[in-house]
Amino acid sequence: MGDDAAVLAPFVGEALISTDVAVLGIDLDAELFPLEDLGFKAVAAAVSDLAAMGARPRGAVVAVGSPPGTDLEELHRGIADAAAMTNCPIVGGDLTQAHDVFVAVTVFGECPGRGAVLRSGARPGDELVVTGPLGRSAAGLRRRRAGARLEDELVVAHRRPWPRIAEGIGARGAGVHAMMDLSDGLGLDLHRLADASRVGFVLDYVPVAPGATLEESISGGEDYELLIATDDAARLRLIFHDRGLRPPITIGHVVANPAKRTWNGDDFERRGWQHQL
Amino acid sequence: MGDDAAVLAPFVGEALISTDVAVLGIDLDAELFPLEDLGFKAVAAAVSDLAAMGARPRGAVVAVGSPPGTDLEELHRGIADAAAMTNCPIVGGDLTQAHDVFVAVTVFGECPGRGAVLRSGARPGDELVVTGPLGRSAAGLRRRRAGARLEDELVVAHRRPWPRIAEGIGARGAGVHAMMDLSDGLGLDLHRLADASRVGFVLDYVPVAPGATLEESISGGEDYELLIATDDAARLRLIFHDRGLRPPITIGHVVANPAKRTWNGDDFERRGWQHQL
Repeated sequence: MGDDAAVLAPFVGEALISTDVAVLGIDLDAELFPLEDLGFKAVAAAVSDLAAMGARPRGAVVAVGSPPGTDLEELHRGIADAAAMTNCPIVGGDLTQAHDVFVAVTVFGECPGRGAVLRSGARPGDELVVTGPLGRSAAGLRRRRAGARLEDELVVAHRRPWPRIAEGIGARGAGVHAMMDLSDGLGLDLHRLADASRVGFVLDYVPVAPGATLEESISGGEDYELLIATDDAARLRLIFHDRGLRPPITIGHVVANPAKRTWNGDDFERRGWQHQL
Repeated sequence: MGDDAAVLAPFVGEALISTDVAVLGIDLDAELFPLEDLGFKAVAAAVSDLAAMGARPRGAVVAVGSPPGTDLEELHRGIADAAAMTNCPIVGGDLTQAHDVFVAVTVFGECPGRGAVLRSGARPGDELVVTGPLGRSAAGLRRRRAGARLEDELVVAHRRPWPRIAEGIGARGAGVHAMMDLSDGLGLDLHRLADASRVGFVLDYVPVAPGATLEESISGGEDYELLIATDDAARLRLIFHDRGLRPPITIGHVVANPAKRTWNGDDFERRGWQHQL
């Protein structure tokens, strides 16, 4: 620090980079949540973009704008908590005056060995799996709006999303064909993966998290579980098991016809929440 | 694009990263300058941080916040112009709604061969040089405030700062001891280099750009010329000459006593403009 730019030891393999910006009042309701959540969620969303491609985080820089009187210490606490939890050190930043309170987080990571896993690699016959049950974040937001405490388990799931870094690295090592994070809900993101791969899908099963509704598990955003397409789910399961990760959950499979996108035999329409992070 | 993060081919050597944020109305007067200047200057300021350490730009990501009705095409034009001029491709971004118009630019670069040049390496006896005459940006702002056209040469110098990438890379190759960019004016930045290196300096000569005042050349910010400490200015001069760069200008030399900081025999006090970019 103190120099014009942060200097990091050489990256190994491909370099990955992603930026996410969060604005108070747009991306976070200041009446319902403390300011530190804005910082935490901005960092977590950015790191999840690395996890989604199987990268290992190397660091982040944070640009903050705020009006005089903003509790920057509280904002920084959320940023620092997320950086510590995701093992992604904050190596630089910039601070400026603004009318909004905003946090722009840029993360960078590396992919040693095999390259990054893209969205576009799904092949007909691939199994579709997710890394955990869905809808926790949306359920937490609903509960908070109804008066639940900040410490409520599902409210915490909404406030403190957990990027699936270990799962992403494991899946990349397992040679999965395609991967992304579920930031906007399965109802949108499954279509995006299929679009990028020019394939269709048969969705058999939506894993609804305890306390969430079926609708929340399909259309709720910010779960940040990973969606994976692989022709060797057994290997993925083994690697996850060896590393002490939760077992991946099979939700369906990929088909060649891009127009075929069904859920229990019916058309599975695009739906979901265009989140801002 | 379309994936969660941008994927770049492996970096060579150390990875450098820097972030700069610019807010309309704070960092740019919307009455005096077009919106595209906000984008251009944010990118140029960030790339200059790479130049300041001798890095080669590899790419940038841009996070933009804006209220409905903002001319995002104009803003983007400025961003794209600066990216093209500095050979620093925009590889990703994020866009969100905000009350402010703001641009947060994160750049990343690489240092093949020798590592990045820090501020802290200046040694007693080193020659102090700058890459060009000073005060052009501050003079351009003054002229614009007095009614000069946007196309006025000095106004353009203010609107379209040019990061000294080739000079920085050449200086790193020449093995200079310390380097930084003059973003806040010699009156502040020379002290910063001396502070980081725990040395003093004797300043003999301030190169005033044609059209600028002495005060502007000392206290004016955003020139983005490089300040360099080297024990082999002849080699630096030769490399610059070979590459068709302007000859470096000697302004003084480094002394061991950190308390000795003089200009023509008098104390050289900290002064300058704390710019926001």
